[in-house]
Order: sequence, then structure tokens, then C-alpha cells
Amino acid sequence: MTLKFYTGSGSPYAWRVHLALEHKALAYETELLSFSAGDTRKPEFLALNPRGRVPLIDDGGFVLYESTAIVEYLDEAYPGRGAPLFPGDALQRATVRRLVSEVAGDLAPVVEKLLDQAFLKPEERMPDAVAAAREAVREQFGFFVRAMRGPYLAGSLSAADYTLYPYAAFLFRVESTRMPEVRAAELLPPELIAWRERIEALPFFPVTYPPHWRKA
Amino acid sequence: MTLKFYTGSGSPYAWRVHLALEHKALAYETELLSFSAGDTRKPEFLALNPRGRVPLIDDGGFVLYESTAIVEYLDEAYPGRGAPLFPGDALQRATVRRLVSEVAGDLAPVVEKLLDQAFLKPEERMPDAVAAAREAVREQFGFFVRAMRGPYLAGSLSAADYTLYPYAAFLFRVESTRMPEVRAAELLPPELIAWRERIEALPFFPVTYPPHWRKA
Repeated sequence: MTLKFYTGSGSPYAWRVHLALEHKALAYETELLSFSAGDTRKPEFLALNPRGRVPLIDDGGFVLYESTAIVEYLDEAYPGRGAPLFPGDALQRATVRRLVSEVAGDLAPVVEKLLDQAFLKPEERMPDAVAAAREAVREQFGFFVRAMRGPYLAGSLSAADYTLYPYAAFLFRVESTRMPEVRAAELLPPELIAWRERIEALPFFPVTYPPHWRKA
Repeated sequence: MTLKFYTGSGSPYAWRVHLALEHKALAYETELLSFSAGDTRKPEFLALNPRGRVPLIDDGGFVLYESTAIVEYLDEAYPGRGAPLFPGDALQRATVRRLVSEVAGDLAPVVEKLLDQAFLKPEERMPDAVAAAREAVREQFGFFVRAMRGPYLAGSLSAADYTLYPYAAFLFRVESTRMPEVRAAELLPPELIAWRERIEALPFFPVTYPPHWRKA
């Protein structure tokens, strides 16, 4: 039975799982749910995840949600498919988990504050809130660049990179489509600008790009 | 070299690590930092964790922070000490990680909203905010009780229980010391009231009890 991947376009949580699926070159079927059509609130989806959220996988009847749990499950259930997303060494693996936790608990909330402003009408945005959120985002990326141990966050490519990357992408996206004053390139230190380019150059990267972000 | 455990009294994040250390019957030295004395902001601590937060462990020179990463590291680095905190089966392990993620992302924020009200002066509290937070907390515990698969969240005692437990304890604590209208027992379904008693009956539980909560 093929693994089913339930996703929604433009969810940073779903994107990390999509990157992990491709990194591991797994065969999967994509179920693209529409947030605007309320697909994640429909009874058939709530039966899979009572919290009504993507990403979710159904791997031969084993249903799992929560993106961090999914990424680690894929790595464990399908060993030997590509480089591990969590390194074999217990100390390095712990460090990757620490970085994943810092993305979720520290960086994501401040990026979301900036996105909240971006999704307001321009006249409703508060310049002070935008400036404070930008500064907080810049500070957060600073923690990650100082922890960086090579071309990728934990040295080699890992779950930490796939967890952090979507937030960087969102900043550039909202700058180009909604709020030029984000000035995303100023928020990432040069090492993370180069890191972002490295992720986007991965051969499978285009497959994971949010469908509704694509241009004709 | 003995494992060092840096903690602060009354941190739910540190408590889960303390429960894990005791569960695994590990030898460790406790460094109890004082939040009010600013110990977590002192240069010598910031050199260990630039984010200035407990819990943190130093295991023979390997420094690790972020409570979820620490708990899983302890389980992996010290196998065979007590029942595993993360089950050996990949599917069950994924489910434990999912539950841990739901505590961090869903339950903790709503408990914190209720605690925010509790730490205000009584005359500054907003009854509507208290009522809304209570209802959100009750709803969140509902998710966990419906997911429960035996006497503990994932069937047998796991990291999921140690991650959720401190939030239940905090509710009873603020009810008895600050804000009787929390009425914690109404927020936990009966199965979780019994579950809480089971955790508190663990032989090592008293060792982990926050020092400043103890009464003479």
C-alpha cells in the first residue's frame, strides 16, 4: 500500500515533511487539501486527525500527524534511503532534535508575528510591530547561524534544515507578494543566504514547492 | 564524570527532564538555578545555553538543552535503565513523539494563558479570559484522554506522560496557592485524574517535586 501524504499548499509544517519524503526518495501519493474549502475540517479528515491539521501520513494504515514526529518516523521506518535525516551518532542526533525544537519554539513564533502583519491590509499594519518582528526574526536567525557546523545546520543535511527552511522561504515570499518592507535578505546572515540557496538547489526541491506559489 | 542537570524550581520543561532522569535511575548532580537571582542570564550559563534557559544537561562535556531533545537523548544514551521512555517499536515511538509535540504545541500554550491570569493580582484578572482559558484547557485534556491507550497516554509509561504531567500539576498548584477559580479537577477528565495520581505514586516522584512548592 502506497504511503499517503496529506498536505496543504503553503503550510511550513507540511513542507518539512514533503522535503523529508523527497530526501528519502520514498514513493507516496499526495492528497492536497484545500484550507479555503475547509477540507481539514471535514469529518473524513477529522477521523484521521481530530485536530484537523496537515501534514498527516497514512503508511499502510498507520496514521500519524505532527510534522516533527512524521519526519523522524520516516527516517526510522525507511532506513538506508538517502542520508539519514537524524544522524546515527546519538550526540549529533540529539543536537538535530535540539535545533528542530528551537525552530518550533523560538523562530516559528516570531516569523508568524511578521506574517500576521503581512496578511493585514497595508493600512492596518503597525510599523512598530513590523519593526519589532523583523528584529526578533533577525535575532533568531542569529542563534542558528552561530550554532551552524558546516554547510548545513548540523554539519550535514538533516531534519533541522528542512524544519528551518520553510520559514526562510516564507519571508522572501511575503516580501515579493505582500510586504516589500520585510526585506528578507537583511534578516538572514550571509551564511544562511548561502544555505537557503543550497537547499533550493537540491534536485528534488522543485517538487516540494508550494503549488499555489508557482507562476504560469 | 557525573551527568550535571541544570534546573530551575517550577519549570515544567525542567520537571519533565527530572522525571526522566529519575525514571532511568541515572546518577546526576543537580545545579538548581534561581530565576529571581538571574542565574540563567549569567555569562557562565549563557556560555552553555545562549538562550539562557533550563533545563540543560552536561553529560561528560556534551552540553544539551531543549527538554524534548534531552529526554530522548537520555533514553538513547542510557538504554536498559528502566523501561524505555520511547518504546522500541517504531510506530509506538512515533506516537509518543506525536503526543509530546501536541503537549508542546497545543496544551502548553493554553495552560500558560490560564497561568498568566493566575499570576496577575486578583483585581487585574479578566473573568472572561479565565473562563476562555479554562475551557481551552479542558478541551485540550480531552484530546489526550481520547488518545489514551491504557493506564498511561501511550499505553505504558513514556516520555509523553512526563511531558504532560507538569501542566496538570501546575493547574492544581495555582488553584491552591493563587486562584481557586481554576478548579483544576473539573478540567481533567476522570481518567486523567487517575493518571495524575498514578504519576504521583511513582516511587521517585517526590524527588522531582519543585523545591519551592514544598511546605515545612
